[in-house]
Amino acid sequence: MYFHLIGNFNTSAPTGQADADVAALVSEANGTLLAKGAPEGKGARILDLRIEDQKIRVEIESDQYVRAHDAILRLRKPLATLLGKKYRIGIRGIEIESYVAKIPSKNPVKAEKIPYVSNMAFDGDDITIEMEIGEPEIRNSIPDRIITLITDKIAAEGYGGKEEHWNLLWESAEKPILSGEDPTPELVKRNWVKHGASRGQWIYGPEATRIFRTFEQIVKKEVLDFLGYQEMIFPKLVTWDVWKKSGHAKGVYPEIYYVCPPKTRDPDFWEEVSDYYKVTHEIPLDLIAEKIDKPIGGLCYAQCPPFWPFLQGKTIADDAFPIQVFDRSGTSHRYESGGIHGIERVDEFHRIEIVWMGTPEHVVEEAERIHERYKYIFEEILELTWRKAWVTPWFMAQEGLTGTTGNEKVGTTDYESFMPYRDDWLEFQNVSVNGDKYPLGFNVKSQSGNELWSGCSGVGLERWASSFFAQKGIDYENWPESFKEIVGELPKGFAFM
Amino acid sequence: MYFHLIGNFNTSAPTGQADADVAALVSEANGTLLAKGAPEGKGARILDLRIEDQKIRVEIESDQYVRAHDAILRLRKPLATLLGKKYRIGIRGIEIESYVAKIPSKNPVKAEKIPYVSNMAFDGDDITIEMEIGEPEIRNSIPDRIITLITDKIAAEGYGGKEEHWNLLWESAEKPILSGEDPTPELVKRNWVKHGASRGQWIYGPEATRIFRTFEQIVKKEVLDFLGYQEMIFPKLVTWDVWKKSGHAKGVYPEIYYVCPPKTRDPDFWEEVSDYYKVTHEIPLDLIAEKIDKPIGGLCYAQCPPFWPFLQGKTIADDAFPIQVFDRSGTSHRYESGGIHGIERVDEFHRIEIVWMGTPEHVVEEAERIHERYKYIFEEILELTWRKAWVTPWFMAQEGLTGTTGNEKVGTTDYESFMPYRDDWLEFQNVSVNGDKYPLGFNVKSQSGNELWSGCSGVGLERWASSFFAQKGIDYENWPESFKEIVGELPKGFAFM
Repeated sequence: MYFHLIGNFNTSAPTGQADADVAALVSEANGTLLAKGAPEGKGARILDLRIEDQKIRVEIESDQYVRAHDAILRLRKPLATLLGKKYRIGIRGIEIESYVAKIPSKNPVKAEKIPYVSNMAFDGDDITIEMEIGEPEIRNSIPDRIITLITDKIAAEGYGGKEEHWNLLWESAEKPILSGEDPTPELVKRNWVKHGASRGQWIYGPEATRIFRTFEQIVKKEVLDFLGYQEMIFPKLVTWDVWKKSGHAKGVYPEIYYVCPPKTRDPDFWEEVSDYYKVTHEIPLDLIAEKIDKPIGGLCYAQCPPFWPFLQGKTIADDAFPIQVFDRSGTSHRYESGGIHGIERVDEFHRIEIVWMGTPEHVVEEAERIHERYKYIFEEILELTWRKAWVTPWFMAQEGLTGTTGNEKVGTTDYESFMPYRDDWLEFQNVSVNGDKYPLGFNVKSQSGNELWSGCSGVGLERWASSFFAQKGIDYENWPESFKEIVGELPKGFAFM
Repeated sequence: MYFHLIGNFNTSAPTGQADADVAALVSEANGTLLAKGAPEGKGARILDLRIEDQKIRVEIESDQYVRAHDAILRLRKPLATLLGKKYRIGIRGIEIESYVAKIPSKNPVKAEKIPYVSNMAFDGDDITIEMEIGEPEIRNSIPDRIITLITDKIAAEGYGGKEEHWNLLWESAEKPILSGEDPTPELVKRNWVKHGASRGQWIYGPEATRIFRTFEQIVKKEVLDFLGYQEMIFPKLVTWDVWKKSGHAKGVYPEIYYVCPPKTRDPDFWEEVSDYYKVTHEIPLDLIAEKIDKPIGGLCYAQCPPFWPFLQGKTIADDAFPIQVFDRSGTSHRYESGGIHGIERVDEFHRIEIVWMGTPEHVVEEAERIHERYKYIFEEILELTWRKAWVTPWFMAQEGLTGTTGNEKVGTTDYESFMPYRDDWLEFQNVSVNGDKYPLGFNVKSQSGNELWSGCSGVGLERWASSFFAQKGIDYENWPESFKEIVGELPKGFAFM
């Protein structure tokens, strides 16, 4: 990486008289102040110094170790001390005339408009970035974030776009496959489910709901009660503030259902809309669009982020650990990227979200305990053909990042079930060790000051049902005895003419 | 009411030759065709007839019995028959030059822009409405809807604005009041609840969640299982289509949380937004607003409407009756009009929604059975001080209408609990007989062809909790034994430093 900056220190009076002192300070800084913390022979260097009336103009080049924008900041204090003490002159601010970074890359990267970037070019070896910044942007880490953004884009190109990491961990024995059909059409035929009015949305009749609730009951007994989890109720409308702290604000935009409140709840403000509808029987969408605010966030996407404000800024008493909670209080919504299909890939879905927090050791061990309990369910109760894979951590995938994380214990295990009707596998739940991401993002501390990690696991009821029906069919009499015992007699649902 | 219309029949050729025949038809129509169906001496009357080249111009006045716009339509067919048979001339369409309605009113009404209304004025006795319409609007009932709209506005003014009807039905004995405090601050202090990141939204810790789930368990056992209800899962994102059929599209706009999907899920389309956030750590709301679609509907408001598409257009087998279902699968959201307060009046809440359908008799009797079961719960388990009132039906209130309905069996009973800390009452749930509104709106029929009615009842868990805590306090040891037995031992929640 290479950085080149031209900037001015604006002073409160002409500094011509300080010429020699300033030159000495600058010459001294090269190799000392501007190399501090960098490996031998690395760092920033002042190439040129000019003193013009009330401006001290410097030209700086650097590598990535002491980036030129950091270098100019490092100069400010000693310069101010020198000018202030001896000459009673103050520094009023730093002005950046030009700032260019070059990052080696084999390919150009996609980027429309990056804030503070006036130009970007690729010459076959480097990406050259021209930035328009000032002192506040430097202090606010803007140039560093731009460099990280471009570096990540280069890395993502290297991984071959946004492909996720996938590594098989374990595979079950093949279990009896009792169906070769796509279950949804049959569920529709039997009136167990009907498509809802919205995209990728289903209404579940009594029989299908009984299956969902049976899954829930199994997870409650075999995982949650077994391991000592407490139920909580997490919110389902998620504001930007939560997604900033959870990291989702980095990349979840294409799949969000956005939520906009009315600009006001004054009925008079809305009467025009009601009147229009009552006369035309059409919804005046343009008029409504004018009367609602910009989105305040969106519908629940990942289920655990809106839990974290409960703990935000808190120090947790040592005897309250481990924290082990779950939520099953509502829907999640995604504008699905892979194409919607039956109840298998939907926009509105139901999930039990399990969250635990404690020391890194506890969090990793707890993930293992949870894995064991799931194994018991899929092997002994549902008798599924399934497997586990180590994948790009869910939070990285949802932030638009690729690869795995630095710590080998941190990451996501996806559970996949075999779908005979399409001879392929369906991701139907996951278990993740999220490291310190959430305690850090939401500023949660332990009384002892020990490092805090967290984990989470999402049980997708639509995905469980799709897996079970695809392998075992929809005929009650064929289902494993162990499952039928828990389901009991199926309710009598709807019969239409 | 008075209507005055000037309109032209446009003909395929000059009709000068048919002058006498047309005049005879018109003169005959007054008192016969234009009075048909109206009381003696009432109806529409053609005041003037002019034939000019390819136009037959009529001036019509009427009362409300055969409105002038209907009158001109009634003329079309006999006129076409006359001109076609004898003169080989066709009618190409009707053009309305001017249309004015006068509706008696003691007051002006509020209305900004009503579609097809070019002017509206109040002279102390009447509201005069000038409409700009054509034949398609008449056929599409636009003028009638405008008249209904204005008539409803006049009626609403008469009721003194949007005030709801309220009539006490029953009041319980006073039960022991063990608290005089607003419960929310104490719940917050004990870490049972914490405010969520959004307006009127709470995160419920283990203790509060246990109370909610205990209420749910009580309703399940004492109402739903007792009376034979089946659980279903209703969708939680509600599209315009559903609200058109349920009637909410008439007036629910001020309180909706609107939902907008992304214009596309193409990551490239959204990269600019992600890049902006990654560099600035600010959400680019204006940019996002450009990249999302107009709202497709909103978050669940009333809980039962999105159930009805399950039955939409269906004829239900006779032996499937009565239909008795419930849903507890997610959150409801209202941009609250009465000011939010603690967990008592919130924007995001949790409700068990109970729906039944059958003959009018069944629906009315079932409402009584449900009332009895609730009474058992509030008297024998929760020991509340509560009362019931007959109120403006919820669906009328939510459509912006006032008063009660035509049928004395159709309507809403609100349950109110006494809130000692503010010496007032809180509506905490309701039971409604909705008449044929939903089966009609969603086109649901019975095999036998019998009339279908439906009912619904919403159990608001936040409201139950507010009622219980306000009367009984938050100290477990003070709670009624009957309730403690069901709650069991409270879970140990969070302890912060």
